[in-house]
Amino acid sequence: MRRAPNLDPEALAKGLLDGDRASIGRAITIIESNHPRHRPIADQLLEIALKSGRSAHRVGISGVPGVGKSTFIESFGLWLVNQGYKVAVLAIDPSSTLSGGSILGDKTRMIRLSREERAFIRPSPSAGTLGGVARKTREAMILLEAAGYDVVLIETVGVGQSETTVAEMVDFYLVLMLAGAGDELQGVKRGILELVDTLVINKADGDNFNNARRARGEYARGLRLMRPIHESWAPRVLMASGLEGKGLDKVWEAISDHREALEAAGHWEKRRQAQAIRWMHALVTERLIDDFQTNHAVREALPRLEELVRTGQRPAGAAAAELLALYKGG
Amino acid sequence: MRRAPNLDPEALAKGLLDGDRASIGRAITIIESNHPRHRPIADQLLEIALKSGRSAHRVGISGVPGVGKSTFIESFGLWLVNQGYKVAVLAIDPSSTLSGGSILGDKTRMIRLSREERAFIRPSPSAGTLGGVARKTREAMILLEAAGYDVVLIETVGVGQSETTVAEMVDFYLVLMLAGAGDELQGVKRGILELVDTLVINKADGDNFNNARRARGEYARGLRLMRPIHESWAPRVLMASGLEGKGLDKVWEAISDHREALEAAGHWEKRRQAQAIRWMHALVTERLIDDFQTNHAVREALPRLEELVRTGQRPAGAAAAELLALYKGG
Repeated sequence: MRRAPNLDPEALAKGLLDGDRASIGRAITIIESNHPRHRPIADQLLEIALKSGRSAHRVGISGVPGVGKSTFIESFGLWLVNQGYKVAVLAIDPSSTLSGGSILGDKTRMIRLSREERAFIRPSPSAGTLGGVARKTREAMILLEAAGYDVVLIETVGVGQSETTVAEMVDFYLVLMLAGAGDELQGVKRGILELVDTLVINKADGDNFNNARRARGEYARGLRLMRPIHESWAPRVLMASGLEGKGLDKVWEAISDHREALEAAGHWEKRRQAQAIRWMHALVTERLIDDFQTNHAVREALPRLEELVRTGQRPAGAAAAELLALYKGG
Repeated sequence: MRRAPNLDPEALAKGLLDGDRASIGRAITIIESNHPRHRPIADQLLEIALKSGRSAHRVGISGVPGVGKSTFIESFGLWLVNQGYKVAVLAIDPSSTLSGGSILGDKTRMIRLSREERAFIRPSPSAGTLGGVARKTREAMILLEAAGYDVVLIETVGVGQSETTVAEMVDFYLVLMLAGAGDELQGVKRGILELVDTLVINKADGDNFNNARRARGEYARGLRLMRPIHESWAPRVLMASGLEGKGLDKVWEAISDHREALEAAGHWEKRRQAQAIRWMHALVTERLIDDFQTNHAVREALPRLEELVRTGQRPAGAAAAELLALYKGG
């Protein structure tokens, strides 16, 4: 049994733990692969990564298109690198398969940050469902932690369910906002504001500064009307300019204070542990449904049963029971 | 093998097809039951009901609390009864288990309608998950169709996912709205407006009439900005007063015109067939997950694996794979 040298998990794991960029890239490619042969290697890499005991500060960043996410993340990433941190940037963009363009797919978008030795940027995996994309990003995060990165920034476009998915895998969830005329709360769904650990009004520069200040006040009032997720942390509303690199210190201060507060209250580890358990259950459901859908007997019977249900000859429940029996028998 | 007489599916089915109210009630109780012994009887009843070939006009009605849903549904139900239709009212309220109070649980809420011989009112099943409640309501609807009801009204509180669930099981989806000061589009999530076949501004009576007219104009403009779901139907915005029984004829006109338009375009049956197929797939997923969760080997291993994941000794994916293997082997 000959195996290509770049698929040797132990060599890869060693390179990963040494922080070797080529090994990190290859390891992430393996966990992103849909090839069944790669899955056991991926699981082995993840096990080694978890055993390393290394962990990063996980920060989720979302915001609507046009909010200046790339510029903000590049500036914030550079600021963190200058503070001595190693920074990784990942993304979740389930739309990338459809649109062809992926978040961070165009490396030139963060060209200054990507040149930094202490930064690692990886575009969103472009594999179908949100569940699949999220799994790959979460696993990439675990590999990057083992590779010694101190902060992992996970970017997502603020649409649909992907914000919830990101909030569910990070320690700190930050949403970028713009000051706008009119009702400041219009742009974001109420659901997002309930998840948020800090709101940042971006583009607080030049002529826009006063608008940003006004928006900050309005959002701060809005957030006070909601109960914080953690008794130990009240979400902040900050201003920043990704373009001018302003306000980034306050953003990091919020992230650090949040950790301190949650650790003091004993909520930090609990949040991570609860996330890991929910993650396991999400994976089980995903794999179970996948296993069912690829089952030979199920696939063979499906067209006939769909036809019976379509034409009203068989109740949906009876057809469902028959499919389940085929699956269990197969 | 002796079987209690009220569980004899053939006698029950006969009573159901004859429109006997006691039989209908008992048949719905059986499909609502979580007892495994009742499931085969329920499936048999549903099969007979489907084979009857009878079908009702299925109308979903939702709206936020305070919009006057009960009053509107009672008025509209009475109006339909006066036109000669047999009307059934069902509800989907997944919160009823938690809150104790269920939609339509208090029969006195629709006391006039409930006294009508040609009306049948059933409170929301109060069984846990949205999926479970939705299944029971959908199956009750199929029984009521076989029992000869012409129109089935399905009520839901406009929160969370239940509107989407209702829209997915009806022919016509109607949302009740209130005229309010300020931004008229605030109250509803964008997602609901995309599902809607007609919006009704309720409480268009007395001092509120002019507000309602203004709101109607604003919603009409809002809806025009969105693409209709069906090329064959452009959603209408109407005014009504449940309290004074006004505008109900226009609501029924919209429901009838919608059917005519969809039938002419060949979309009516297609919509129903697609719903039945999606329903089957939803049931399969629900039962598959249920079967997995109640599996003996899975239940036995779960605490140990959760502990390993919680403490970071096992990656979530590896634990998920182990659970799946236990399920498949068990």
